[in-house]
Amino acid sequence: MASAMELTSEIVAQEELVKALRARKVSKEEIDSATQKLSLLKTSYKAATGEDYKADCSPENPAPGNERGLDATEAGEDFVDPWMVQTSSAKGVDYDKLIVRFGSSKIDQELINRIERAIGQKPHRFLRRGIFFSHRDMNQVLDAYENKKPFYLYTGRGPSSEAMHLGHLIPFIFTKWLQDVFNVPLVIQMTDDEKYLWKDLTLDQAYGYAVENAKDIIACGFDIKKTFIFSDLEYMGSSSDFYRNVVKIQKHVTFNQVKGIFGFTDSDSIGKISFPAIQAAPSFSNSFPQIFRDRADIQCLIPCAIDQDPYFRMTRDVAPRIGYPKPALLHSTFFPALQGAQTKMSASDPNSSIFLTDSAKQIKNKVNKHAFSGGRDTVEEHRQFGGNCDVDVSFMYLTFFLEDDDRLEQIRKDYTSGALLTGDLKKILIEVLQPLVAEHQARRQEVTDEVVKEFMSPRKLFYDFQ
Amino acid sequence: MASAMELTSEIVAQEELVKALRARKVSKEEIDSATQKLSLLKTSYKAATGEDYKADCSPENPAPGNERGLDATEAGEDFVDPWMVQTSSAKGVDYDKLIVRFGSSKIDQELINRIERAIGQKPHRFLRRGIFFSHRDMNQVLDAYENKKPFYLYTGRGPSSEAMHLGHLIPFIFTKWLQDVFNVPLVIQMTDDEKYLWKDLTLDQAYGYAVENAKDIIACGFDIKKTFIFSDLEYMGSSSDFYRNVVKIQKHVTFNQVKGIFGFTDSDSIGKISFPAIQAAPSFSNSFPQIFRDRADIQCLIPCAIDQDPYFRMTRDVAPRIGYPKPALLHSTFFPALQGAQTKMSASDPNSSIFLTDSAKQIKNKVNKHAFSGGRDTVEEHRQFGGNCDVDVSFMYLTFFLEDDDRLEQIRKDYTSGALLTGDLKKILIEVLQPLVAEHQARRQEVTDEVVKEFMSPRKLFYDFQ
Repeated sequence: MASAMELTSEIVAQEELVKALRARKVSKEEIDSATQKLSLLKTSYKAATGEDYKADCSPENPAPGNERGLDATEAGEDFVDPWMVQTSSAKGVDYDKLIVRFGSSKIDQELINRIERAIGQKPHRFLRRGIFFSHRDMNQVLDAYENKKPFYLYTGRGPSSEAMHLGHLIPFIFTKWLQDVFNVPLVIQMTDDEKYLWKDLTLDQAYGYAVENAKDIIACGFDIKKTFIFSDLEYMGSSSDFYRNVVKIQKHVTFNQVKGIFGFTDSDSIGKISFPAIQAAPSFSNSFPQIFRDRADIQCLIPCAIDQDPYFRMTRDVAPRIGYPKPALLHSTFFPALQGAQTKMSASDPNSSIFLTDSAKQIKNKVNKHAFSGGRDTVEEHRQFGGNCDVDVSFMYLTFFLEDDDRLEQIRKDYTSGALLTGDLKKILIEVLQPLVAEHQARRQEVTDEVVKEFMSPRKLFYDFQ
Repeated sequence: MASAMELTSEIVAQEELVKALRARKVSKEEIDSATQKLSLLKTSYKAATGEDYKADCSPENPAPGNERGLDATEAGEDFVDPWMVQTSSAKGVDYDKLIVRFGSSKIDQELINRIERAIGQKPHRFLRRGIFFSHRDMNQVLDAYENKKPFYLYTGRGPSSEAMHLGHLIPFIFTKWLQDVFNVPLVIQMTDDEKYLWKDLTLDQAYGYAVENAKDIIACGFDIKKTFIFSDLEYMGSSSDFYRNVVKIQKHVTFNQVKGIFGFTDSDSIGKISFPAIQAAPSFSNSFPQIFRDRADIQCLIPCAIDQDPYFRMTRDVAPRIGYPKPALLHSTFFPALQGAQTKMSASDPNSSIFLTDSAKQIKNKVNKHAFSGGRDTVEEHRQFGGNCDVDVSFMYLTFFLEDDDRLEQIRKDYTSGALLTGDLKKILIEVLQPLVAEHQARRQEVTDEVVKEFMSPRKLFYDFQ
């Protein structure tokens, strides 16, 4: 084990690196990866010394002011916005604090029970286990549903590469379930324009990723009669109504506001600055006249990861000023990287995630080699003191993907007690993930270009409240 | 005649009013109108005292810093941007100074001769008389033309109301001539989205004005086989290629840049901030695949009033960075208001302009009653000292609309010598304008909804270089 002094100098060097990367404005992935390493070093420091690492606050090394991310994390606060998620805790982001900070509401047992009553079915495991943990106005959606009033679902994805990983599926798995139990139409936005604006991509690359990613999304099992998937680059050019809503939103949001919400600066491109209106527009039903005709009053429900909330805080602020209903929201936690819950998974580090293209063997190797363990250093210690499910990534993954509540609880008990060893736990996870990914691959294989084209064509959808 | 003291207190009061209007951010028209009155008071002051009015520069009344417009004007500099044109000179803006400030090139006799040689026809009176006075890269366009390489024309209009006046026709009259003599395709952008963003209009109103204004533009005689007129609100929703270019431009322009060019502030809407990309996009031929297929390299020539130049300075700055040719430009002077050349005409003051809907009688009354005269106070004085064509609005209008050079020169001589009285000069103008407007009205009458629809449909155009 490294000494505290060695670790300190490594931490200081890594902090310098993170700062330098930020100053050079390199990609989010690079910064994430460096920040992640910094967090792991700090975790090691604590493991070695029993104390939290504290940065030297000498005048030569002042707090970095308004710089995004690092200062909040160093002050013990998590940092979450659409481009950066940071926490120094191996348990991941403190979601209760986030609810308070964002001003959303906790999905409590009462709300889960109400959903169960409304749909007459067992709530999804993501609800039962607090993976979708926060909401805005979900009771209003249920009021509408119980009064036979229509609503629709809206979610999306930023297609930054062809490679999607397990974490990317979370909102789609949940949205598919919502579509099934509520029997409502769904629109899925592929923000290829956003990825073009933020990344070093050509327009054709971004659009190509949108189409490729759409295949993985379709493989989640969405109902083609009730689902419209669209690329911004394509749909903007095929619907005046969508552009009209974008302009409407853009008229009612100032640079001051997006600066406050997203941290944009004067050196950001005018494309980035105006983009939030494009992610906001699908929240309003008259952006889709082919689906909702001229109705502008149909309530929208947005399932998404909590880091997307800033877009919809802005949307909810604008909505009443342009005569539209505020969208409701269901927020999920982040899917942890194999290396630990300090950050989201990174599409650019193949070992940080299980990709949807991974083979059974790759899955086995990645879990065995990279999944951060909450177990003890030796089998003897583990049997004696037990493992820590709160930081164990294999256990976290099982909470996402193992449907059987009783079995999950038994695993939790056995691992905590030490009866279940890390190797055994990883084996269970591997046996859950291998068929899950293989079945996804099989379904994706069946998604032909014609099917994608159909999903992505502006058209009438079929649903109850027409 | 008012005393210098009376005028001073009127000027001071008017200055306070202008400042107050600016602080309240009222409409451009209101500020223009108040500023115009201020300029006229200063002109009267000079007439009464023989000296320029000088503001008190006491510490209580410091220069207003970065505020748009007034400071430049008070310092004897004209102020010109897409939303505000100000000068304190009755002769109008000093265009030679503007060429230096904007970094464009003067349209000199050599260039006019070259155009004449290229087209084998007499240059348009707007060229002969310096109404189109400035250019960027026009020689490059002529090089292309002489080498049988294609180019196309792009101009536009912000449809802020149904009422168009004579001044609005200037770029279209000239563009029609360019289309005829060069036999090239033309795209005309109606920035209804811009007007929605800047004015207190609904989207439907702005689009409605775009269609109404298109009728007046079509009545200028454009060739339906070679002309595409489009509303942004409509065309954005029917062309992915247009949106792709908009996003491309938006990626390569920062808020800092548009702040510098257009004077935007943090309180401006993100719609205004990102709009310049939408006015820039038609400068690139692949925004119109229905016309130019996939060619991105066809040179664009933009005839416009000089106040639109900031948009195209930005466009020319971006073009090479996204792999497109820079658009060339031909800049016109402003068409003076009836009350004098201090500002552009205002669509909101019916007496400042001859509207395209005015009857023969209204034209007669407006010219006789409101056209600022460079004549003397009495017939005797006029006969003795002669009139001043440099500030006489009737004479200025004749330079725009009287085709016969010799007759115009004779009028100038006679008015300057005093042989021609103000009443006679106004009579000549009335006799030029009445048939011009009546013929426009007759042509507009013939523009059916079907014709407008055809002009505004994205479609193939017919021209030589296909």
